Amino acid sequence: MTVLIDVIALQPFGQLPAFEDGDLIMFESRAITYYLAQECADKGTQLINTSGKEMAEMLVWMEVESLHFGSVFKIFGRERVLNPLRGLPTDTAVLEESKAKLSNILDVYEARLAQSKYLGGDTFTLADLHHIPSIARVMDVPDWKQLFDADSRPHVKAWIADITARPSWAKVLALQHKH
Amino acid sequence: MTVLIDVIALQPFGQLPAFEDGDLIMFESRAITYYLAQECADKGTQLINTSGKEMAEMLVWMEVESLHFGSVFKIFGRERVLNPLRGLPTDTAVLEESKAKLSNILDVYEARLAQSKYLGGDTFTLADLHHIPSIARVMDVPDWKQLFDADSRPHVKAWIADITARPSWAKVLALQHKH
Repeated sequence: MTVLIDVIALQPFGQLPAFEDGDLIMFESRAITYYLAQECADKGTQLINTSGKEMAEMLVWMEVESLHFGSVFKIFGRERVLNPLRGLPTDTAVLEESKAKLSNILDVYEARLAQSKYLGGDTFTLADLHHIPSIARVMDVPDWKQLFDADSRPHVKAWIADITARPSWAKVLALQHKH
Repeated sequence: MTVLIDVIALQPFGQLPAFEDGDLIMFESRAITYYLAQECADKGTQLINTSGKEMAEMLVWMEVESLHFGSVFKIFGRERVLNPLRGLPTDTAVLEESKAKLSNILDVYEARLAQSKYLGGDTFTLADLHHIPSIARVMDVPDWKQLFDADSRPHVKAWIADITARPSWAKVLALQHKH
């Protein structure tokens, strides 16, 4: 199995990442993680629930990450990361609107995490894991970081501390620092 | 099992649809369809692939629908449907940009469907099904409909004719006309 960096030929939308496993070529990060979690279910932590209410709740919060949380970070990435790199201006009004949306989303998360240790249920699943890269991106951006640190959302704060303290995430960070 | 119309109390983001099955409450349409396809796997058409390469390809194209195709239709819905209902202006530049994006997306679909009868593989799955409501919305909007009718994309055209001719979709349309 290989995660590919040069993906233009493999990824029809020209975006990272792409993934190759024998004659299978995949793109879309969340499809790749689901496939890996399913195919490697007998190795390490079980990251997906495959039936009943546990599956249902995991699926709901995976969608919330993708369509609500993720869409905010798509705008953050464009306005705060890509546009400066491309010499384009940052639209501060759009960015502020996204920050306000994120604040509302985190209020929904606080209510969920007050009732459930993890988003998808009692155990850590892809529904949690998919949030970690986005959260890590704003840890050195004070006005965004403060949304995750707010005392008004103690369960969100504890959840972030928990999921970002996982040894697997420390390994990802160590790999990034090597490059 | 009940699909709920009055969802304010059940759907934390205040959007349709929500779904109730015993003590399980779900929201996010794609999570609901996946759950139903899994739980009702022994009834009618099998709509999901649950392992190996077949699952991987279905997952990829479900993500493409959600994040590429779906994001175009989110803008279409806001600019062409919701804004007029709310007495707000339609941003024609944004709408044109979305139409151009859709055209590019359909070129990717044409390449895929030239190699595979359905998006997720040899059989009809949720990866196809999730497209039907969006396609149906533009069938009376000539400048959008023409993207789906283009002779330059014969496989897209045949795929749309196939998936919208399913008896289950005729039943959905009949239900809509009753209300």
